[in-house]
Amino acid sequence: MTSDPTHAEPAPFTAEDYAARMAAAAGAAADAGLAGLLIAPGPDLAHLTGYRPTAETERLTVLVLAAGRDPVLVVPALEAPDAERAPGAAALTLRDWADGKSPYAAAAPLMGPAGRFGVSDNTWALHLLGLQREAPATSYVSLTDSLPMLRAVKDDRELERLTAAGAAADAAYAQILHLPFANRRETDVAADLAALLRAHGHSQVDFTVVGSGPNGANPHHEAGDRVIRPGDMVVLDFGGLRYGYGSDISRTVHVGGPTAEEQRVHDVVREAQQAGFAAVRPGAACQDVDRAARAVITEFGYGDRFIHRTGHGIGVTTHEPPYMVEGEERPLVPGMCFSVEPGIYLPGRFGVRIEDIVTVTADGGRRLNNAPRELAVVE
Amino acid sequence: MTSDPTHAEPAPFTAEDYAARMAAAAGAAADAGLAGLLIAPGPDLAHLTGYRPTAETERLTVLVLAAGRDPVLVVPALEAPDAERAPGAAALTLRDWADGKSPYAAAAPLMGPAGRFGVSDNTWALHLLGLQREAPATSYVSLTDSLPMLRAVKDDRELERLTAAGAAADAAYAQILHLPFANRRETDVAADLAALLRAHGHSQVDFTVVGSGPNGANPHHEAGDRVIRPGDMVVLDFGGLRYGYGSDISRTVHVGGPTAEEQRVHDVVREAQQAGFAAVRPGAACQDVDRAARAVITEFGYGDRFIHRTGHGIGVTTHEPPYMVEGEERPLVPGMCFSVEPGIYLPGRFGVRIEDIVTVTADGGRRLNNAPRELAVVE
Repeated sequence: MTSDPTHAEPAPFTAEDYAARMAAAAGAAADAGLAGLLIAPGPDLAHLTGYRPTAETERLTVLVLAAGRDPVLVVPALEAPDAERAPGAAALTLRDWADGKSPYAAAAPLMGPAGRFGVSDNTWALHLLGLQREAPATSYVSLTDSLPMLRAVKDDRELERLTAAGAAADAAYAQILHLPFANRRETDVAADLAALLRAHGHSQVDFTVVGSGPNGANPHHEAGDRVIRPGDMVVLDFGGLRYGYGSDISRTVHVGGPTAEEQRVHDVVREAQQAGFAAVRPGAACQDVDRAARAVITEFGYGDRFIHRTGHGIGVTTHEPPYMVEGEERPLVPGMCFSVEPGIYLPGRFGVRIEDIVTVTADGGRRLNNAPRELAVVE
Repeated sequence: MTSDPTHAEPAPFTAEDYAARMAAAAGAAADAGLAGLLIAPGPDLAHLTGYRPTAETERLTVLVLAAGRDPVLVVPALEAPDAERAPGAAALTLRDWADGKSPYAAAAPLMGPAGRFGVSDNTWALHLLGLQREAPATSYVSLTDSLPMLRAVKDDRELERLTAAGAAADAAYAQILHLPFANRRETDVAADLAALLRAHGHSQVDFTVVGSGPNGANPHHEAGDRVIRPGDMVVLDFGGLRYGYGSDISRTVHVGGPTAEEQRVHDVVREAQQAGFAAVRPGAACQDVDRAARAVITEFGYGDRFIHRTGHGIGVTTHEPPYMVEGEERPLVPGMCFSVEPGIYLPGRFGVRIEDIVTVTADGGRRLNNAPRELAVVE
């Protein structure tokens, strides 16, 4: 059941789309002085080929991309039937290897004897070391350190999916406000959030944070057995995939009316979130978004209680470059999509976080989450 | 609801248990000529510390182990509260690093300027390359290539858990035989299997393969929209975690009575599975188990239709060393636990696979799955 017909499923990406992405990636690698790219199962492979193997294992699967050569996907023989059905399979050559053979001996000839290769961040060390052993004259650099923005700029068809995912998260939030919080466990509310995301078209739920009272002061808390009580602040942070692209939203609600201090902390975070959003424009540095949000929180005396960066990119995953963090000096580019999610965490007491996904346009930022940011009172 | 009170939850592992495991691992590393071990989130970290971070991310978490030094767990600051609650936390020192700082600069001083380190297979390339950059005189080898048997030999308390997981899988299989197959989709039967595993105490379901008719001929098929029909062979292969340890069982059933050929193929696989099991004894090589099972299938003319290795280890994961595969010459040791799962795959027609988890004892193999291996007829 998908309750927003305005976000019907988009036409799928085709083998031609994936061919274009692979060609662009190979070109970007050449521009960066790399001999090619080695792409492991995970978001990079999903982006470039549409292939999402069931599991990442000790069996090597790797896409070898190099400018001027056809893409080759090295796969374990018993996974070849799955790979052949991938949306991008028609745009590449499959080369399989059987149990008992060396997959590195199968992959190395595709790379040539030497050269520097960009590798997916999440490539297993087992495989990287196997390739280094098989081809000792090659060297490697992670995609984060060589082509961090390879997937960062989204095209219109990707934006359509991210917009649909954001709308679904907004709808889930609107509905959770009408469900009971008091005297239920965090895990019960988390289950409600997951069900709502699925009801609004999500194929996958990645996280459902429900941080009530002191649990909200741990930004990494997920949801536990704690029973939510009247008077609690409750951090909600949830998301997953819809049409293959991510949602991620945070709002903080209060069970019954807040105290003056709770309202003030929420106001500060809301102002910081607005400041971070307002800093989004083409050419600004990623760290400028972090600085803008952090400046507000610091001004109100909570600087040391904002203990994480301000944001992360989103696309075929819910968590990827670019990062809105001090030291990230690369510029914002139209089409980038990322979270703006400042927070204040008061250990042993409560936390507040407010998060929207924002995309960069020629004119500045545009929010993909539009749920109200005021402190909502729940029951 | 757990229906087998004979497998009540065992007493949890303590900080002392984890301290002993870390000391043993550091000792094994020293014996192997390594300066130490770098353990990433995943099964190695779960085994050594009981810590299972919510997600593996670009934020570095690594356990640094070296003989004669206290274990140190490097964690992102915002995950430190979770790490502090890990069962093994009292046996190690936490060192956190904050967003915007280099985690590699935090980890490298714990390693010393040089030396060769064993690294978890699934360590991200991003992190391995980061450490190589920070400490250029260090070198690395995967645990599969340096200490592949680090987790392979299970102690009595681990065996207790694996036995309980196997009994639960057997019970789930016994019950699925009484549920309808014909005119239902594979995914419906898969959902039943998942529910049965959970009903029998599984905290996590890792896979529920339902390969009906021609789908059974793809050993990597999971479960799809195909409607199961009378006359289908159906490969079932399912498992997950109970009490933190894995189950994994395969049986092949038939909807209505089999043809003579189907029965014959099943008989061959069953005989091969028995032959693989019979080859299990201390001192035999892992590859001997593969050879024994494969010899039977080859003898009956299906050698080229057995397209995967015969088995894999099981423990805190459902898929780990040791591997029963040609070329794996390491000896079987009492306490090792692994699958024996030969199969025959006839493309476009059907497949058969039979799998038990087996543990090595002083006297030979002992099965942790004891569900009937005859070809069961379902409706």
